[in-house]
Amino acid sequence: MDFADFFPIWSTLTENERDIISRAAFDRKFPKDTVLSRGTECTGLLLIRSGQIRAYTTSEEGKEITLYRLFERDICLFSASCMLNSMQFEITLATEKDSVVTVIPAEIYKTVMTASAPLANFTNEIMASRFSDVMWLIEQIMWKSLDKRLASFLLEEAAIEGGNTLKITHEIIGNHLGSPREVVTRMLRYFASEGLVKLARGTIEIADETGLRALAG
Amino acid sequence: MDFADFFPIWSTLTENERDIISRAAFDRKFPKDTVLSRGTECTGLLLIRSGQIRAYTTSEEGKEITLYRLFERDICLFSASCMLNSMQFEITLATEKDSVVTVIPAEIYKTVMTASAPLANFTNEIMASRFSDVMWLIEQIMWKSLDKRLASFLLEEAAIEGGNTLKITHEIIGNHLGSPREVVTRMLRYFASEGLVKLARGTIEIADETGLRALAG
Repeated sequence: MDFADFFPIWSTLTENERDIISRAAFDRKFPKDTVLSRGTECTGLLLIRSGQIRAYTTSEEGKEITLYRLFERDICLFSASCMLNSMQFEITLATEKDSVVTVIPAEIYKTVMTASAPLANFTNEIMASRFSDVMWLIEQIMWKSLDKRLASFLLEEAAIEGGNTLKITHEIIGNHLGSPREVVTRMLRYFASEGLVKLARGTIEIADETGLRALAG
Repeated sequence: MDFADFFPIWSTLTENERDIISRAAFDRKFPKDTVLSRGTECTGLLLIRSGQIRAYTTSEEGKEITLYRLFERDICLFSASCMLNSMQFEITLATEKDSVVTVIPAEIYKTVMTASAPLANFTNEIMASRFSDVMWLIEQIMWKSLDKRLASFLLEEAAIEGGNTLKITHEIIGNHLGSPREVVTRMLRYFASEGLVKLARGTIEIADETGLRALAG
Protein backbone atom coordinates (compact mmCIF):
# COMPACT_ATOMS: atom_id res chain seq x y z
CA MET A 1 0.00 0.00 0.00
CA ASP A 2 1.26 3.38 -1.06
CA PHE A 3 0.62 6.87 0.33
CA ALA A 4 -1.59 7.51 -2.70
CA ASP A 5 -3.91 4.75 -1.45
CA PHE A 6 -4.55 6.82 1.65
CA PHE A 7 -4.30 10.31 0.16
CA PRO A 8 -6.22 10.66 -3.12
CA ILE A 9 -4.61 14.11 -3.40
CA TRP A 10 -1.06 12.67 -3.09
CA SER A 11 -0.15 13.49 -6.69
CA THR A 12 -1.13 17.14 -6.21
CA LEU A 13 1.45 17.61 -3.44
CA THR A 14 4.84 18.94 -4.50
CA GLU A 15 7.73 16.51 -4.74
CA ASN A 16 9.28 18.18 -1.73
CA GLU A 17 6.09 17.79 0.32
CA ARG A 18 5.82 14.12 -0.61
CA ASP A 19 9.47 13.66 0.38
CA ILE A 20 9.02 15.33 3.76
CA ILE A 21 6.09 13.06 4.62
CA SER A 22 7.61 9.84 3.20
CA ARG A 23 10.93 10.28 5.02
CA ALA A 24 9.36 11.04 8.39
CA ALA A 25 6.80 8.24 8.24
CA PHE A 26 7.49 4.85 9.82
CA ASP A 27 5.62 1.58 10.22
CA ARG A 28 4.57 0.10 13.55
CA LYS A 29 2.95 -3.19 14.44
CA PHE A 30 0.57 -3.32 17.36
CA PRO A 31 -0.99 -6.46 18.81
CA LYS A 32 -4.72 -6.65 19.48
CA ASP A 33 -5.95 -4.56 22.44
CA THR A 34 -3.07 -2.07 22.46
CA VAL A 35 -3.92 1.49 23.44
CA LEU A 36 -2.37 3.66 20.71
CA SER A 37 -3.29 7.08 21.96
CA ARG A 38 -5.13 8.40 24.97
CA GLY A 39 -6.46 11.83 25.84
CA THR A 40 -4.30 14.60 24.52
CA GLU A 41 -1.32 12.45 23.52
CA CYS A 42 -0.15 13.38 20.05
CA THR A 43 1.42 10.39 18.39
CA GLY A 44 0.76 11.46 14.84
CA LEU A 45 -1.50 10.58 11.95
CA LEU A 46 -2.05 6.84 11.63
CA LEU A 47 -2.54 5.21 8.23
CA ILE A 48 -4.11 1.82 8.84
CA ARG A 49 -2.42 -0.77 6.63
CA SER A 50 -4.15 -3.73 8.26
CA GLY A 51 -6.17 -4.46 11.34
CA GLN A 52 -8.91 -2.58 13.11
CA ILE A 53 -8.92 0.38 15.48
CA ARG A 54 -11.59 1.55 17.85
CA ALA A 55 -12.04 5.16 18.94
CA TYR A 56 -13.90 5.54 22.19
CA THR A 57 -14.51 7.88 25.06
CA THR A 58 -14.56 6.94 28.73
CA SER A 59 -16.33 8.22 31.81
CA GLU A 60 -14.54 9.06 35.04
CA GLU A 61 -15.69 5.70 36.37
CA GLY A 62 -14.22 3.87 33.39
CA LYS A 63 -17.43 3.33 31.44
CA GLU A 64 -16.87 3.34 27.68
CA ILE A 65 -18.72 4.06 24.47
CA THR A 66 -17.43 3.48 20.95
CA LEU A 67 -17.34 6.62 18.79
CA TYR A 68 -16.31 4.97 15.53
CA ARG A 69 -14.07 2.25 14.12
CA LEU A 70 -11.30 2.45 11.56
CA PHE A 71 -10.31 -0.22 9.08
CA GLU A 72 -7.69 -0.88 6.42
CA ARG A 73 -7.05 2.25 4.31
CA ASP A 74 -8.59 4.58 6.88
CA ILE A 75 -6.68 7.49 8.34
CA CYS A 76 -6.74 8.23 12.04
CA LEU A 77 -6.65 11.98 12.61
CA PHE A 78 -7.35 12.28 16.31
CA SER A 79 -4.11 10.60 17.31
CA ALA A 80 -2.64 13.88 16.07
CA SER A 81 -5.02 16.20 17.88
CA CYS A 82 -2.24 18.64 18.81
CA MET A 83 -2.24 19.68 15.14
CA LEU A 84 -5.42 21.63 15.72
CA ASN A 85 -5.66 24.13 18.55
CA SER A 86 -9.43 23.96 18.64
CA MET A 87 -9.56 20.21 19.16
CA GLN A 88 -10.31 20.05 22.86
CA PHE A 89 -11.59 16.62 23.68
CA GLU A 90 -10.25 13.28 24.73
CA ILE A 91 -10.49 10.16 22.65
CA THR A 92 -8.85 6.83 23.30
CA LEU A 93 -7.66 4.76 20.33
CA ALA A 94 -7.00 1.05 20.67
CA THR A 95 -6.46 -1.87 18.33
CA GLU A 96 -9.28 -4.40 18.12
CA LYS A 97 -7.15 -6.74 16.00
CA ASP A 98 -3.42 -7.11 15.35
CA SER A 99 -2.70 -4.01 13.28
CA VAL A 100 0.00 -2.48 11.12
CA VAL A 101 -0.04 1.28 10.84
CA THR A 102 2.14 3.92 9.23
CA VAL A 103 2.75 6.82 11.59
CA ILE A 104 3.21 10.33 10.22
CA PRO A 105 4.53 12.46 13.10
CA ALA A 106 2.06 15.25 13.92
CA GLU A 107 4.51 18.15 13.60
CA ILE A 108 5.63 16.94 10.16
CA TYR A 109 2.09 16.58 8.92
CA LYS A 110 1.16 19.96 10.34
CA THR A 111 4.11 21.65 8.63
CA VAL A 112 3.08 20.32 5.23
CA MET A 113 -0.63 20.93 5.82
CA THR A 114 -0.04 24.54 6.84
CA ALA A 115 1.48 25.28 3.44
CA SER A 116 -0.53 22.91 1.27
CA ALA A 117 -4.11 23.77 0.30
CA PRO A 118 -4.74 20.27 -1.13
CA LEU A 119 -3.60 18.55 2.07
CA ALA A 120 -5.49 20.99 4.31
CA ASN A 121 -8.67 20.49 2.28
CA PHE A 122 -8.27 16.73 2.35
CA THR A 123 -7.76 16.85 6.12
CA ASN A 124 -11.01 18.79 6.30
CA GLU A 125 -12.71 15.91 4.51
CA ILE A 126 -11.31 13.36 6.98
CA MET A 127 -12.56 15.41 9.89
CA ALA A 128 -15.97 15.91 8.28
CA SER A 129 -16.19 12.15 7.87
CA ARG A 130 -15.46 11.51 11.56
CA PHE A 131 -17.86 14.32 12.47
CA SER A 132 -20.53 12.47 10.49
CA ASP A 133 -19.78 9.28 12.45
CA VAL A 134 -20.15 11.09 15.75
CA MET A 135 -23.35 12.85 14.70
CA TRP A 136 -24.75 9.46 13.74
CA LEU A 137 -23.83 8.24 17.22
CA ILE A 138 -25.61 11.17 18.90
CA GLU A 139 -28.73 10.35 16.94
CA GLN A 140 -28.43 6.69 17.96
CA ILE A 141 -27.97 7.52 21.63
CA MET A 142 -30.70 10.13 21.70
CA TRP A 143 -33.45 8.69 19.57
CA LYS A 144 -32.88 4.95 19.27
CA SER A 145 -33.71 2.46 21.97
CA LEU A 146 -31.10 -0.08 23.07
CA ASP A 147 -32.78 -3.01 21.32
CA LYS A 148 -32.41 -1.31 17.92
CA ARG A 149 -28.83 -0.28 18.66
CA LEU A 150 -27.92 -3.78 19.81
CA ALA A 151 -29.49 -5.32 16.70
CA SER A 152 -27.49 -2.89 14.49
CA PHE A 153 -24.30 -3.66 16.39
CA LEU A 154 -24.67 -7.45 16.00
CA LEU A 155 -25.29 -7.07 12.26
CA GLU A 156 -22.28 -4.74 11.93
CA GLU A 157 -20.07 -7.21 13.78
CA ALA A 158 -21.24 -10.08 11.58
CA ALA A 159 -20.42 -7.98 8.50
CA ILE A 160 -16.93 -7.13 9.85
CA GLU A 161 -16.14 -10.71 10.88
CA GLY A 162 -17.76 -12.29 7.83
CA GLY A 163 -19.82 -14.83 9.76
CA ASN A 164 -22.93 -15.20 11.88
CA THR A 165 -21.23 -16.59 14.98
CA LEU A 166 -19.69 -13.78 17.01
CA LYS A 167 -17.02 -14.38 19.63
CA ILE A 168 -17.65 -11.43 21.86
CA THR A 169 -18.50 -10.96 25.51
CA HIS A 170 -21.53 -9.10 26.80
CA GLU A 171 -19.17 -6.73 28.60
CA ILE A 172 -17.40 -5.74 25.39
CA ILE A 173 -20.72 -5.15 23.68
CA GLY A 174 -21.66 -2.96 26.65
CA ASN A 175 -18.45 -0.97 26.20
CA HIS A 176 -19.28 -0.39 22.53
CA LEU A 177 -22.81 0.75 23.24
CA GLY A 178 -22.16 2.64 26.48
CA SER A 179 -24.46 0.31 28.44
CA PRO A 180 -23.88 -1.82 31.55
CA ARG A 181 -23.16 -5.51 30.92
CA GLU A 182 -26.27 -6.62 32.81
CA VAL A 183 -28.50 -4.56 30.54
CA VAL A 184 -26.85 -6.09 27.45
CA THR A 185 -27.27 -9.60 28.87
CA ARG A 186 -30.93 -9.00 29.59
CA MET A 187 -31.54 -7.68 26.09
CA LEU A 188 -29.65 -10.58 24.50
CA ARG A 189 -31.79 -13.04 26.49
CA TYR A 190 -34.85 -11.27 25.18
CA PHE A 191 -33.44 -11.56 21.63
CA ALA A 192 -32.85 -15.28 22.24
CA SER A 193 -36.42 -15.76 23.49
CA GLU A 194 -37.64 -14.12 20.26
CA GLY A 195 -35.46 -16.48 18.20
CA LEU A 196 -33.27 -13.67 16.87
CA VAL A 197 -30.02 -15.05 18.34
CA LYS A 198 -28.72 -18.20 20.00
CA LEU A 199 -26.52 -17.73 23.04
CA ALA A 200 -23.70 -20.03 24.08
CA ARG A 201 -20.66 -19.61 26.32
CA GLY A 202 -18.53 -16.90 24.72
CA THR A 203 -20.51 -16.72 21.49
CA ILE A 204 -23.62 -15.15 20.06
CA GLU A 205 -25.05 -16.70 16.92
CA ILE A 206 -27.31 -14.68 14.68
CA ALA A 207 -30.30 -16.98 14.14
CA ASP A 208 -32.72 -14.68 12.34
CA GLU A 209 -30.90 -12.03 10.33
CA THR A 210 -34.10 -10.75 8.69
CA GLY A 211 -35.70 -10.30 12.08
CA LEU A 212 -32.66 -8.43 13.41
CA ARG A 213 -32.67 -6.16 10.34
CA ALA A 214 -36.35 -5.40 10.85
CA LEU A 215 -35.68 -4.55 14.49
CA ALA A 216 -32.66 -2.39 13.66
CA GLY A 217 -34.93 -0.41 11.33
CA MET B 1 -17.28 44.44 12.21
CA ASP B 2 -14.84 43.56 9.50
CA PHE B 3 -13.97 40.22 7.86
CA ALA B 4 -10.73 40.28 9.85
CA ASP B 5 -12.81 40.09 13.05
CA PHE B 6 -14.10 36.72 11.91
CA PHE B 7 -11.05 35.45 10.05
CA PRO B 8 -7.81 35.97 12.00
CA ILE B 9 -6.03 34.80 8.82
CA TRP B 10 -7.74 37.45 6.65
CA SER B 11 -4.51 39.42 6.08
CA THR B 12 -2.75 36.28 4.81
CA LEU B 13 -5.26 35.88 1.96
CA THR B 14 -4.30 37.45 -1.36
CA GLU B 15 -5.97 40.71 -2.35
CA ASN B 16 -7.83 38.82 -5.06
CA GLU B 17 -9.12 36.21 -2.59
CA ARG B 18 -10.29 38.92 -0.21
CA ASP B 19 -12.05 40.66 -3.10
CA ILE B 20 -13.83 37.49 -4.23
CA ILE B 21 -15.21 36.91 -0.75
CA SER B 22 -16.05 40.55 0.01
CA ARG B 23 -17.93 41.08 -3.24
CA ALA B 24 -19.99 37.90 -2.95
CA ALA B 25 -20.89 38.37 0.73
CA PHE B 26 -24.13 40.06 1.73
CA ASP B 27 -25.86 40.91 4.99
CA ARG B 28 -29.18 39.49 6.09
CA LYS B 29 -31.39 40.21 9.10
CA PHE B 30 -33.38 37.38 10.60
CA PRO B 31 -35.98 37.76 13.36
CA LYS B 32 -35.88 35.48 16.39
CA ASP B 33 -36.90 31.86 15.75
CA THR B 34 -36.16 31.82 12.03
CA VAL B 35 -34.87 28.54 10.62
CA LEU B 36 -31.78 29.51 8.62
CA SER B 37 -30.77 26.13 7.31
CA ARG B 38 -32.18 22.65 7.59
CA GLY B 39 -30.78 19.26 6.62
CA THR B 40 -28.65 19.41 3.53
CA GLU B 41 -29.58 22.94 2.48
CA CYS B 42 -26.49 24.87 1.58
CA THR B 43 -27.05 28.54 2.23
CA GLY B 44 -23.44 29.44 2.78
CA LEU B 45 -21.11 30.35 5.60
CA LEU B 46 -22.74 32.62 8.14
CA LEU B 47 -20.74 35.27 10.02
CA ILE B 48 -22.76 36.23 13.06
CA ARG B 49 -22.68 40.02 13.48
CA SER B 50 -25.28 40.08 16.24
CA GLY B 51 -27.82 37.79 17.79
CA GLN B 52 -27.72 34.12 18.68
CA ILE B 53 -28.04 30.94 16.67
CA ARG B 54 -28.82 27.44 17.83
CA ALA B 55 -27.62 24.31 16.04
CA TYR B 56 -29.69 21.27 16.81
CA THR B 57 -30.57 17.86 15.53
CA THR B 58 -34.02 16.36 15.46
CA SER B 59 -35.41 12.86 15.58
CA GLU B 60 -37.90 11.52 13.05
CA GLU B 61 -40.61 12.26 15.62
CA GLY B 62 -39.48 15.89 15.91
CA LYS B 63 -37.60 15.64 19.20
CA GLU B 64 -34.68 18.07 19.41
CA ILE B 65 -31.34 18.36 21.11
CA THR B 66 -29.10 21.41 21.01
CA LEU B 67 -25.67 20.62 19.65
CA TYR B 68 -24.15 24.02 20.24
CA ARG B 69 -24.95 27.71 20.07
CA LEU B 70 -23.28 30.47 18.14
CA PHE B 71 -22.92 34.07 19.20
CA GLU B 72 -21.58 37.38 17.89
CA ARG B 73 -18.28 36.87 16.02
CA ASP B 74 -18.83 33.13 15.57
CA ILE B 75 -18.82 31.51 12.15
CA CYS B 76 -21.43 28.97 11.18
CA LEU B 77 -19.89 26.32 8.94
CA PHE B 78 -22.63 23.71 8.74
CA SER B 79 -24.98 25.99 6.83
CA ALA B 80 -22.47 25.38 4.00
CA SER B 81 -22.24 21.60 4.37
CA CYS B 82 -22.22 21.04 0.58
CA MET B 83 -18.66 22.41 0.64
CA LEU B 84 -17.46 19.12 2.11
CA ASN B 85 -18.38 15.83 0.47
CA SER B 86 -17.81 13.86 3.66
CA MET B 87 -20.21 15.92 5.73
CA GLN B 88 -23.17 13.62 5.81
CA PHE B 89 -25.45 14.60 8.59
CA GLU B 90 -28.35 16.90 9.15
CA ILE B 91 -28.26 19.89 11.42
CA THR B 92 -30.91 22.56 11.78
CA LEU B 93 -29.85 26.14 12.43
CA ALA B 94 -32.26 28.68 13.85
CA THR B 95 -32.03 32.13 15.40
CA GLU B 96 -32.71 32.34 19.13
CA LYS B 97 -32.62 36.15 19.03
CA ASP B 98 -33.02 38.76 16.29
CA SER B 99 -29.80 38.29 14.37
CA VAL B 100 -27.73 39.97 11.69
CA VAL B 101 -25.47 37.70 9.69
CA THR B 102 -23.14 38.07 6.74
CA VAL B 103 -23.63 35.27 4.23
CA ILE B 104 -20.71 34.02 2.15
CA PRO B 105 -22.17 31.80 -0.58
CA ALA B 106 -20.88 28.23 -0.23
CA GLU B 107 -19.51 27.88 -3.78
CA ILE B 108 -17.57 31.13 -3.45
CA TYR B 109 -16.07 30.13 -0.13
CA LYS B 110 -15.24 26.69 -1.46
CA THR B 111 -13.47 28.14 -4.51
CA VAL B 112 -11.22 30.29 -2.34
CA MET B 113 -10.67 27.55 0.26
CA THR B 114 -9.65 25.02 -2.38
CA ALA B 115 -6.76 27.24 -3.45
CA SER B 116 -5.89 28.83 -0.11
CA ALA B 117 -3.95 26.88 2.51
CA PRO B 118 -4.55 29.54 5.19
CA LEU B 119 -8.31 29.52 4.63
CA ALA B 120 -8.48 25.70 4.47
CA ASN B 121 -6.49 25.40 7.70
CA PHE B 122 -8.63 27.99 9.42
CA THR B 123 -11.76 26.14 8.29
CA ASN B 124 -10.24 23.03 9.87
CA GLU B 125 -10.01 24.92 13.16
CA ILE B 126 -13.65 25.98 12.97
CA MET B 127 -14.69 22.39 12.39
CA ALA B 128 -12.46 21.12 15.21
CA SER B 129 -14.08 23.63 17.52
CA ARG B 130 -17.60 22.43 16.64
CA PHE B 131 -16.37 18.84 16.92
CA SER B 132 -15.23 19.65 20.47
CA ASP B 133 -18.69 21.03 21.28
CA VAL B 134 -20.34 17.88 20.05
CA MET B 135 -17.90 15.57 21.88
CA TRP B 136 -18.64 17.50 25.06
CA LEU B 137 -22.32 16.91 24.45
CA ILE B 138 -21.80 13.16 24.02
CA GLU B 139 -19.99 13.00 27.32
CA GLN B 140 -22.79 14.95 28.98
CA ILE B 141 -25.42 12.70 27.52
CA MET B 142 -23.56 9.51 28.40
CA TRP B 143 -21.99 10.13 31.77
CA LYS B 144 -23.53 13.34 33.07
CA SER B 145 -21.58 13.70 36.25
CA LEU B 146 -19.94 17.12 36.40
CA ASP B 147 -23.20 19.00 35.91
CA LYS B 148 -24.61 17.39 39.07
CA ARG B 149 -21.42 18.10 41.01
CA LEU B 150 -21.31 21.70 39.83
CA ALA B 151 -24.99 22.23 40.70
CA SER B 152 -24.37 20.87 44.21
CA PHE B 153 -21.31 23.02 44.61
CA LEU B 154 -23.13 26.24 43.65
CA LEU B 155 -25.96 25.47 46.10
CA GLU B 156 -23.45 24.72 48.83
CA GLU B 157 -21.59 27.97 48.18
CA ALA B 158 -24.88 29.92 48.28
CA ALA B 159 -25.71 28.33 51.63
CA ILE B 160 -22.25 29.19 52.99
CA GLU B 161 -22.30 32.76 51.70
CA GLY B 162 -25.94 33.33 52.62
CA GLY B 163 -26.87 34.74 49.24
CA ASN B 164 -27.56 33.77 45.68
CA THR B 165 -24.85 35.91 44.10
CA LEU B 166 -21.52 34.12 44.26
CA LYS B 167 -18.25 35.99 43.85
CA ILE B 168 -16.09 33.17 42.66
CA THR B 169 -13.89 32.50 39.67
CA HIS B 170 -14.34 29.53 37.39
CA GLU B 171 -10.77 28.52 38.14
CA ILE B 172 -11.44 28.26 41.87
CA ILE B 173 -14.54 26.17 41.22
CA GLY B 174 -12.37 23.97 39.01
CA ASN B 175 -9.91 23.61 41.86
CA HIS B 176 -12.73 22.57 44.20
CA LEU B 177 -14.08 19.98 41.81
CA GLY B 178 -10.79 18.75 40.38
CA SER B 179 -11.81 19.89 36.90
CA PRO B 180 -10.09 22.18 34.39
CA ARG B 181 -11.31 25.77 34.41
CA GLU B 182 -12.40 25.53 30.77
CA VAL B 183 -14.71 22.67 31.58
CA VAL B 184 -16.33 24.61 34.43
CA THR B 185 -16.71 27.69 32.21
CA ARG B 186 -18.36 25.63 29.53
CA MET B 187 -20.70 23.99 32.03
CA LEU B 188 -21.64 27.34 33.61
CA ARG B 189 -22.44 28.74 30.16
CA TYR B 190 -24.68 25.76 29.64
CA PHE B 191 -26.36 26.41 33.02
CA ALA B 192 -26.83 30.05 31.96
CA SER B 193 -28.41 29.00 28.68
CA GLU B 194 -30.84 26.85 30.68
CA GLY B 195 -31.74 29.81 32.92
CA LEU B 196 -30.31 28.18 36.06
CA VAL B 197 -27.71 30.89 36.70
CA LYS B 198 -26.81 34.34 35.45
CA LEU B 199 -23.16 35.00 34.72
CA ALA B 200 -21.48 38.37 35.06
CA ARG B 201 -17.89 39.44 35.39
CA GLY B 202 -16.65 37.79 38.57
CA THR B 203 -20.08 36.65 39.77
CA ILE B 204 -22.53 33.82 39.32
CA GLU B 205 -26.11 34.48 40.33
CA ILE B 206 -28.35 31.52 41.03
CA ALA B 207 -31.47 32.29 39.03
CA ASP B 208 -33.40 29.05 39.45
CA GLU B 209 -32.60 27.36 42.74
CA THR B 210 -35.32 24.72 42.32
CA GLY B 211 -33.96 23.82 38.92
CA LEU B 212 -30.42 23.52 40.28
CA ARG B 213 -31.64 21.29 43.14
CA ALA B 214 -33.45 19.06 40.68
CA LEU B 215 -30.31 18.82 38.59
CA ALA B 216 -28.08 18.12 41.59
CA GLY B 217 -30.40 15.21 42.39
